[in-house]
Amino acid sequence: MLKEAIFHRPKNNFAYAYNETTLHIRLQTKKEDVEAVELIYGDPYIWEDGEWISLKKPMNKTGSDDLYDYWLAEVSPEYRRLRYGFALKSEEETIIYNEKGFYEEEPKDCGLYFCFPFLNKIDVFQAPTWVKDTVWYQIFPERFGNGNKENDPKGALPWGSTDPSTTNFFGGDFEGVIEHIDHLVELGITGIYFTPIFKAKSNHKYDTIDYMEIDPQFGTKETFKKLVEVCHENGIKIMLDAVFNHSGYFWEPFQDVLKNGEKSKYKDWFHIWDFPVVTKPKPNYDAFAFVSDMPKLNTEHPEVKDYLLEVGRYWVREFNIDGWRLDVANEVDHQFWRDFRNAVKAEKEDVYILGEIWHDSMPWLQGDQFDAVMNYPFTTATLDFLAKNKTKATEFANSISKVMHSYPINVNEVAFNLLGSHDTPRILTICEENKDKLKLLFLFQLSFVGAPCIYYGDEFSMTGDQDPGCRKCMVWEEEKQDLNMFAFVKKLIGLRKELPVFGNHGDIHFIEANDETNHVMYEKVSNSTGERILFVVNNSDKDLVVTLPDGVKGTVMRDLWNGEEFAFAADATALQVKLPAYGFQILAY
Amino acid sequence: MLKEAIFHRPKNNFAYAYNETTLHIRLQTKKEDVEAVELIYGDPYIWEDGEWISLKKPMNKTGSDDLYDYWLAEVSPEYRRLRYGFALKSEEETIIYNEKGFYEEEPKDCGLYFCFPFLNKIDVFQAPTWVKDTVWYQIFPERFGNGNKENDPKGALPWGSTDPSTTNFFGGDFEGVIEHIDHLVELGITGIYFTPIFKAKSNHKYDTIDYMEIDPQFGTKETFKKLVEVCHENGIKIMLDAVFNHSGYFWEPFQDVLKNGEKSKYKDWFHIWDFPVVTKPKPNYDAFAFVSDMPKLNTEHPEVKDYLLEVGRYWVREFNIDGWRLDVANEVDHQFWRDFRNAVKAEKEDVYILGEIWHDSMPWLQGDQFDAVMNYPFTTATLDFLAKNKTKATEFANSISKVMHSYPINVNEVAFNLLGSHDTPRILTICEENKDKLKLLFLFQLSFVGAPCIYYGDEFSMTGDQDPGCRKCMVWEEEKQDLNMFAFVKKLIGLRKELPVFGNHGDIHFIEANDETNHVMYEKVSNSTGERILFVVNNSDKDLVVTLPDGVKGTVMRDLWNGEEFAFAADATALQVKLPAYGFQILAY
Repeated sequence: MLKEAIFHRPKNNFAYAYNETTLHIRLQTKKEDVEAVELIYGDPYIWEDGEWISLKKPMNKTGSDDLYDYWLAEVSPEYRRLRYGFALKSEEETIIYNEKGFYEEEPKDCGLYFCFPFLNKIDVFQAPTWVKDTVWYQIFPERFGNGNKENDPKGALPWGSTDPSTTNFFGGDFEGVIEHIDHLVELGITGIYFTPIFKAKSNHKYDTIDYMEIDPQFGTKETFKKLVEVCHENGIKIMLDAVFNHSGYFWEPFQDVLKNGEKSKYKDWFHIWDFPVVTKPKPNYDAFAFVSDMPKLNTEHPEVKDYLLEVGRYWVREFNIDGWRLDVANEVDHQFWRDFRNAVKAEKEDVYILGEIWHDSMPWLQGDQFDAVMNYPFTTATLDFLAKNKTKATEFANSISKVMHSYPINVNEVAFNLLGSHDTPRILTICEENKDKLKLLFLFQLSFVGAPCIYYGDEFSMTGDQDPGCRKCMVWEEEKQDLNMFAFVKKLIGLRKELPVFGNHGDIHFIEANDETNHVMYEKVSNSTGERILFVVNNSDKDLVVTLPDGVKGTVMRDLWNGEEFAFAADATALQVKLPAYGFQILAY
Repeated sequence: MLKEAIFHRPKNNFAYAYNETTLHIRLQTKKEDVEAVELIYGDPYIWEDGEWISLKKPMNKTGSDDLYDYWLAEVSPEYRRLRYGFALKSEEETIIYNEKGFYEEEPKDCGLYFCFPFLNKIDVFQAPTWVKDTVWYQIFPERFGNGNKENDPKGALPWGSTDPSTTNFFGGDFEGVIEHIDHLVELGITGIYFTPIFKAKSNHKYDTIDYMEIDPQFGTKETFKKLVEVCHENGIKIMLDAVFNHSGYFWEPFQDVLKNGEKSKYKDWFHIWDFPVVTKPKPNYDAFAFVSDMPKLNTEHPEVKDYLLEVGRYWVREFNIDGWRLDVANEVDHQFWRDFRNAVKAEKEDVYILGEIWHDSMPWLQGDQFDAVMNYPFTTATLDFLAKNKTKATEFANSISKVMHSYPINVNEVAFNLLGSHDTPRILTICEENKDKLKLLFLFQLSFVGAPCIYYGDEFSMTGDQDPGCRKCMVWEEEKQDLNMFAFVKKLIGLRKELPVFGNHGDIHFIEANDETNHVMYEKVSNSTGERILFVVNNSDKDLVVTLPDGVKGTVMRDLWNGEEFAFAADATALQVKLPAYGFQILAY
């Protein structure tokens, strides 16, 4: 066995509390190097005749990536304490691995083993339970619907009359969302993520002028309250976008600093390098990137912190929102986010806290900061394979498996799985307008573990390049809407609701990833009911015959797409399915 | 190169803020597999002509263990943001490693690289600066000195008249410490760690009856105040022992639960499984181990938390203590320790917080919980080699190197490095009373990085088995004191103070570890002054000639033990030192 590849370290994705009574223990080994692994475990204080009492249970191989296999065992320690190690078996040898290293014989001293000292309830990562069954829908409010011409910004253009630019306006507002609530309900989404709605200058509103005011072009606080109510009545949660890393240029405290320099009472609210403050040629203060319009906030300053925490509480308390999405979340200090969590959860226990982080995010997902991050590694892996043909089937399966093993399972279950957003080209455009590929994207996203998010208009096959291109006005003329795609997405969302195992209540694993044909086969399995769904996805422009695994022999399978019992073709010599180019098959059994 | 062995993950011992401006980036590779590593790094937002601008700098190999080499680079990113990866070179190939995996060519997309998003000051691990120059001394107060016969517990035995048992008393108290302050000053220690002093029943006082009262056998609050003052006047810090995982059986709230059962207002202060509460045959409540006398506290309960946090604040505020040592720290929830840190540091900024954790402790040493843990991995590695002959030189060097690379360097610098305590046999006893070996133990401990702690009496060569044997009364009759050992330890402490590089202001690395002769050679190097000290340690019962590294050729070396210039023997054909059995040589240059 390759010892250098064997890895375990407690209190992250390798050992964590799945819930108040259950620990998950994972192990990494070199790919295809180890035949079986047993977990050796026990309570550190249970001894008999001077010997530590340990038990053994087999670990399951839950997946692989390009280099490693991953193994998992669940344990519910009676006294909430655990010491544990691993017995690894290959054809040639059996070795024991614990905190101190490798052994040929099982050491008896429990002090040498890994330690999960105590399963304290308060430390368990616990996201709101509703998120597991939520399908999100992202709205860029300037472009979803114009329900009230009265509040249009000056110079607003007629809806959809031209392409979006970085500066033009079309008058989208809250009444536009309320007006089209039926569309959302019919599609079946159960949560809306709004990009910023607070008073700001730009059309994207990421340059906040006032965190306590609604931007007048979207409506009033009254309209917003009504919007939340209407959504809640229709089973739709509301998540707002908090830009706490930086303010906008026209935010009052920053204006005060520009005006009064060192004498400003807000001078320490930012990170000013020297006075007078200049914005050109480069800002002489910390900013988001080097954008002078977005001065970085000093979130370590008690007054700034108090102010922003009150912003966090205010919109929850007064408007009953259900979630906060945190912009540029990883550049703000951890201490701030810990206090933020405590503040908003004290206001409403089941608020969802979602951080925008593009990189590995384990340090923010330990239970003390965020409930989830935007799952860009999922986005990249999925688009690279299904949309861009940049990767082959194996690399796709490896990447997805790697993402899933980088986090605890309870973290995966509430991850925010997006394919596109206001910051990226439209997914149909990435697919070079191949709608069959778009369908495969939706299929994978909506059958995957986590909380999927659909970017407004993708369900109507809207197109658009990198922003501002991806921020076109929503298409409301029926003749321009792709109703076929709408029906497709609606059907997938329906299956997700109907069959828990289709959505978030089933483990996923790859059965096959074939680089020659470029097809993948994956399975969802419910631990509680034993239900299974087999997905076969043909990501090629050729018809394909795929042989199903032996395990399905003799089972009655149901084709979830037409609802009928699945019959193998009369001339089939094996358990095979025929798929057209970019076709798929979903079989429940 | 063996890709499976290559490892990096940000925000732990592999990537961390060393101080407010400096990041440390580390990499793990298979032992002796990689010739050189360069760090590729840059600000994520600095681009030119559509291309990310990255720099390169070589990484230093800082050590190895049995399986891996470790590499380090320091970076001070101008804008406090960093994206980075690694270029690894061997004779055969150069490969690039970043967050997404391995590449033959350097990828240009900075989104693929590892991310240290922002160096926020508040998140930097910062222990009190004084700890770096502290030599601790552990006192078990019942056994250090009896300065006041008036407060002796009933049945107290004459000082040192018999061996300690689990139940006997000898009357040690605060006045006994004050009386012997000269001993401590002369030895040169600068901090005392007291095992518990609060009102309790046993002689060890880990079974707290009242967290707000001094145990009367030790004195009054007035005496304690005086003790702290006397110590402070003599440059000695005071650390107390907080037992917050569990209370004692006679603690009032637990007595109330025993008496009033479910009607007790304290019933939720513990983890009672069912009522009535029983202590036999096993407690029906969570306890430390299964000890019915030590009921586990429910530290998630707001009232318990408020009470214990106030205990933490009270002794700092009213008595000006300098540190808290936290008993069974890893079984208490993380959230409690975060709040504890905030509470006591608000009272006094440079209080030292030390957790008792025997296992890997990275999750508690991220800057939000503890300043240090008791460094048992150091203890085990050192005793196994120098005291027990259980391991050979190579295994010792590997183990020490592994410990050091398991934590950030700023964590290592304040680690609590003990060799023995009230919980373990006396180190001289472990050495089978070989005083030469005891000297090597002190030498290694006192030249190592971190804050060493001497267990009372070890400086007089006291002996004793596992507790209660190791808790004998301190030897005050001069004829029974080993004054030679005292002078030896005093001299080492003196060198540590005199030469910053001898102590905590020098990096340590092994130059040689020889299993045949069983000697090791290690070096301390000051990054700021360039001073070096070479230590050669003969851990065998034979005389030994050791050849020094070529690098010392032509340098003038000073023998730190006799203070004289070091001259090579006239008949030496090479740069050699002669060491007697269990001898050592310390050469500064």
